[in-house]
Amino acid sequence: MASKHGFKKSPRTLLAVGQDFVLDRVDTSAAPGFSGKKRDAEQVLSERARQLGVLQEQLFAESKFGSTKSVLLVLQAMDTAGKGGIVSHVVGAVDPQGVQLHAFKAPTDEEKQHDFLWRITKELPREGMLGVFDRSHYEDVLIHRVHDWADETELERRYQAINDFEAGLVANGTAVIKVMLHISPETQKERLSARLADPVKRWKYSTGDLTERGFWPQYMEAYQKAFDKTSTEVAPWYVVPADKKWYARLAVQELLIDALENMKLRWPEGDFDLATEKKRLAAS
Amino acid sequence: MASKHGFKKSPRTLLAVGQDFVLDRVDTSAAPGFSGKKRDAEQVLSERARQLGVLQEQLFAESKFGSTKSVLLVLQAMDTAGKGGIVSHVVGAVDPQGVQLHAFKAPTDEEKQHDFLWRITKELPREGMLGVFDRSHYEDVLIHRVHDWADETELERRYQAINDFEAGLVANGTAVIKVMLHISPETQKERLSARLADPVKRWKYSTGDLTERGFWPQYMEAYQKAFDKTSTEVAPWYVVPADKKWYARLAVQELLIDALENMKLRWPEGDFDLATEKKRLAAS
Repeated sequence: MASKHGFKKSPRTLLAVGQDFVLDRVDTSAAPGFSGKKRDAEQVLSERARQLGVLQEQLFAESKFGSTKSVLLVLQAMDTAGKGGIVSHVVGAVDPQGVQLHAFKAPTDEEKQHDFLWRITKELPREGMLGVFDRSHYEDVLIHRVHDWADETELERRYQAINDFEAGLVANGTAVIKVMLHISPETQKERLSARLADPVKRWKYSTGDLTERGFWPQYMEAYQKAFDKTSTEVAPWYVVPADKKWYARLAVQELLIDALENMKLRWPEGDFDLATEKKRLAAS
Repeated sequence: MASKHGFKKSPRTLLAVGQDFVLDRVDTSAAPGFSGKKRDAEQVLSERARQLGVLQEQLFAESKFGSTKSVLLVLQAMDTAGKGGIVSHVVGAVDPQGVQLHAFKAPTDEEKQHDFLWRITKELPREGMLGVFDRSHYEDVLIHRVHDWADETELERRYQAINDFEAGLVANGTAVIKVMLHISPETQKERLSARLADPVKRWKYSTGDLTERGFWPQYMEAYQKAFDKTSTEVAPWYVVPADKKWYARLAVQELLIDALENMKLRWPEGDFDLATEKKRLAAS
């Protein structure tokens, strides 16, 4: 039986970063718009996964007949906020043949010799694909701002370059969905502690995580600045409360479904004469 | 409750192509070694998916601490045999962060300017990854043999090059699992007919499928030849009966689990002092 729970109001409306948005006022433990509890969320996630799967297959199918539409999900967050969980539980429910995932690490020497968008461009989703960036070009205005690796002039240049870049993507048929998974520092502390405590999770812990944790307020400032500069009409940011993992997964799933539904996808007819092929097959 | 059904004997033993293997004698509708029916198969597939997921995560985790182990699953088959279903139902149950999937199409002009293994090498799984090839370098000894695009001398060179190439992969820590999904021509006819009949599946139909279908005996000969030449001790072929989709999925899942279990994977300890990090975290 279908769950009676779901979103009363779309996360696209509730979580979008508009003018006058203040990150500091977001309740990281909230579940905006969702009517149920954790238990209901699991059922809804599984039901909606089927819908997402059908839409993704339609996107893929259309690309075989000339469509250039694609989707790019950009995930940014503090460590342990749950990017990996979004990938495994939301994106993972989709046929891997339609997914292009890339995790951006610290740039290589070769990558450093180019402008910051060079390595990003190479990983953009092909037509028909659901692309997912685990970290992205936003690192160049987040960690770079926090650690003063770029001065204000350079950062301004980057914000502008990002807006131009993303506008180009959208003009070419890519729906760009930018998500910050937002947790509290207390939640991060609990999750890091859990990683250390559990031999099965311990390998995920890095001593660098704690170093970056020390810059929490600076990161929040850098995020606020990035939102002010790059939450555009064609490629808005969404800040998703993520203390409750189940909520963050549902919300991101809904943002993806919403973007795909807006594309008005349809099953292609095929580029052959049906009656002829039925005869050929029968005779084969 | 765990299913009481499963494999009585490993598909690795039952389905491996050894000396004196004759493709023509394989019953495409059989379910070698599995004790249950379709209904049981779904339960077993879902239970074993968890096991496969844990092993894949261990493979990935070990690579963060210097391991170069990886897995490469090579899928070859006649059209409609179910490669896509293996990818979505078996590989799709694994965290996409640990999967590198590549579908090889007809080579591009650039690819044609290089030897046939050039484009293959670029798509090999990185350390810690489960790589999946939907078609592969074997096209160069299958469709090329069927249509006489390469003469016997060139084909012999390719078989040898493939064996050398795969031996190198294995020596470097990649488990190579080569699978032919084997269906009958009657099953293909039914499935093509179903594609034409269903508006949701019709886009998958290509007029070229029927053309290649006309060369069925030549393809079977080319597969037999490829098995004779390239089913080696380090990288054997497995012929998986695939008229029953549920069986093929279970068998390939089991081959993957088996290969990963043979790697003796363990959760890494982490490269830091646990007590120190617990103190640092508490103070943060």
